[in-house]
Amino acid sequence: MSASSINLAVIPGDGIGPEVIAEAIKVLEKAVAAEGVTLEQTHYRLGAQHWLETGETLPDEVLADLRTRDAILFGAVGAAPGDTRIPSGIIEREMLLKLRFSLDHFVNLRPSRLYGTVGSPLANPGTIDFIVVREGTEGPYVGNGGSLRTGTPHEIATEVSLNTAHGVERVVRDAFRRASERPRKHVTLVHKHNVLVYAGHLWKRIVEEVAQDFPEVTHDYLHIDAATIFMVTDPARFDVIVTDNLFGDILTDLAAAVTGGIGLAASGNINMDRTAPSMFEPVHGSAPDIAGQQKADPTAAILSAVLLLDHLGFTAAARRIEAAVVADVEGRTGEPRSTAAIGDAIAARL
Amino acid sequence: MSASSINLAVIPGDGIGPEVIAEAIKVLEKAVAAEGVTLEQTHYRLGAQHWLETGETLPDEVLADLRTRDAILFGAVGAAPGDTRIPSGIIEREMLLKLRFSLDHFVNLRPSRLYGTVGSPLANPGTIDFIVVREGTEGPYVGNGGSLRTGTPHEIATEVSLNTAHGVERVVRDAFRRASERPRKHVTLVHKHNVLVYAGHLWKRIVEEVAQDFPEVTHDYLHIDAATIFMVTDPARFDVIVTDNLFGDILTDLAAAVTGGIGLAASGNINMDRTAPSMFEPVHGSAPDIAGQQKADPTAAILSAVLLLDHLGFTAAARRIEAAVVADVEGRTGEPRSTAAIGDAIAARL
Ligand SMILES: CC(C)[C@H](C(=O)O)[C@@H](O)C(=O)O
Ligand SMILES: CC(C)[C@H](C(=O)O)[C@@H](O)C(=O)O
Repeated sequence: MSASSINLAVIPGDGIGPEVIAEAIKVLEKAVAAEGVTLEQTHYRLGAQHWLETGETLPDEVLADLRTRDAILFGAVGAAPGDTRIPSGIIEREMLLKLRFSLDHFVNLRPSRLYGTVGSPLANPGTIDFIVVREGTEGPYVGNGGSLRTGTPHEIATEVSLNTAHGVERVVRDAFRRASERPRKHVTLVHKHNVLVYAGHLWKRIVEEVAQDFPEVTHDYLHIDAATIFMVTDPARFDVIVTDNLFGDILTDLAAAVTGGIGLAASGNINMDRTAPSMFEPVHGSAPDIAGQQKADPTAAILSAVLLLDHLGFTAAARRIEAAVVADVEGRTGEPRSTAAIGDAIAARL
Repeated sequence: MSASSINLAVIPGDGIGPEVIAEAIKVLEKAVAAEGVTLEQTHYRLGAQHWLETGETLPDEVLADLRTRDAILFGAVGAAPGDTRIPSGIIEREMLLKLRFSLDHFVNLRPSRLYGTVGSPLANPGTIDFIVVREGTEGPYVGNGGSLRTGTPHEIATEVSLNTAHGVERVVRDAFRRASERPRKHVTLVHKHNVLVYAGHLWKRIVEEVAQDFPEVTHDYLHIDAATIFMVTDPARFDVIVTDNLFGDILTDLAAAVTGGIGLAASGNINMDRTAPSMFEPVHGSAPDIAGQQKADPTAAILSAVLLLDHLGFTAAARRIEAAVVADVEGRTGEPRSTAAIGDAIAARL
């Protein structure tokens, strides 16, 4: 990366992925151009559709090529729920999760903010502004399971959650660092240590240890079940949540719903050590039911581009897009607009 | 059990447990007395306080004694969060979970209903009336984990989720049977089979197989993350949810919050084969902060007694208590009442 260009990998993916990514790039290009920065794009055809055509999920050469980019902008992948030609979950695991694991995206960053007029399903949502720092490279997501006597009445199926001090420490440290830069300076660990004793105690120990290095940051603990209750009764209480891969998956979809829907929820799969490019993607899926109809909201993809710019150090451009998005979102009346119209409106505000 | 008496084990437990159980028994006793049935009670001192005094969680003799009862009414257990004298989670695991596992409570039944005027945090909750059939004896709750190089920077901690065709089949069959007796006759399997492939595929296979035996019941599937979204955007869509031990834990606390709070959420830990007594408990915990102050809502405990009566076949008494609770809840104005006052009011309506 040089300060005057961004070498960007683009994976539009399936369903509404290409549509929302087109708008994110439109906005991204305009925002960086204003600072004399050009966007060099390399597009990659990957996803369920690509699998149907080629049988490829994520070939090694493609992964190697992706490693040469500054960052990855990712749309969404996944077949239509009823499409039985594609083995369930294969695209998610062999492509999306493979990217997260191979590129060591240990910080899965998911901010939640409730913008002025956007509809929360909550009657009294309060002021919601928190981030979830979800671990991205271990836990129950490692794919370490198996089955015995498969398909019989005596089948046993296992799933192993793997958690390491190394893996937990780096993400917990990231959460405390982010908290130390926020006004409320508070970290909440979410786990289920009364049941998942071994993993839970590891997380608790590491949080106590890392907390020593951040005396200005306060912290507390919630079981995942209690955390979901607070997410609907008092989401304003949260500042920075740090949690494992699976609890983070659940909590961030719930958080997105509470803050007006996954049409607005952005995420970054970040390698904080910068040993490989980070990847930015809307939290939503490929929504095959509305694909190609210009009905999808590109805001989550555009906000993911903001996280991308922040990660690459283009903070001014990031803040300008963010301001344009906030202005657009706060002006929404419920009148339907096409995907492109929303992208155009946000670009026009830059 | 004879039709004219119920041999009831009572475990009031810690915190608000004894207060709410006292009201549940008040109501239960009056309801069955009207049908000429007496309640023989055996109270057991178990829980965090008992552990502090004796070091006992659940001695074998106590477990053996509990097996001789018709059913168990359980309050809540757990120490105050800050009480470092009690190893974290020991009471939950060595007592509560030990009961569920030893007595083979494979159906963890948790109904969610929104009563007229009770405050849901949702702006437009709609008509909520569903049940969650949570697996209660396997999955990530089996306590099958470990750690290596514990306490060092090289620690590895594992948690193993164990799932068997036997364990999944019996709870899925229970869910379909319950669905077949409800107006909407619909089962939703909640899992995360795109990531937890082995366990997920086992659950999916068994659901497809059991569905063959219930042609009148429709079914669909949701990932746990998507299910939490629907729980706040469209909870009215759910009829019967069947899911594993951990997802069920998370989803039922969220469901309780959405339907007006855990003050109302009842649960049954049911051994449908009747090889051991089933156990009925409010979903809420011991709430040490308000213990002994008559501030707790006993409604969840009273509704748990309703599930107990249903399980034992005292359906008329169950319906009468339920009607009394609904009338009480619908008449609530927000004016605070003591735990005993709520119990008295419900008993008076019988
Ligand atoms: C598609 C799926 C594998 C993925 C996950 O579970 O992480 C998605 O739900 C997400 O949250 O990004
Ligand atoms: C106390 C705890 C072990 C328990 C559970 O996780 O099952 C509780 O949360 C519940 O839902 O009954």
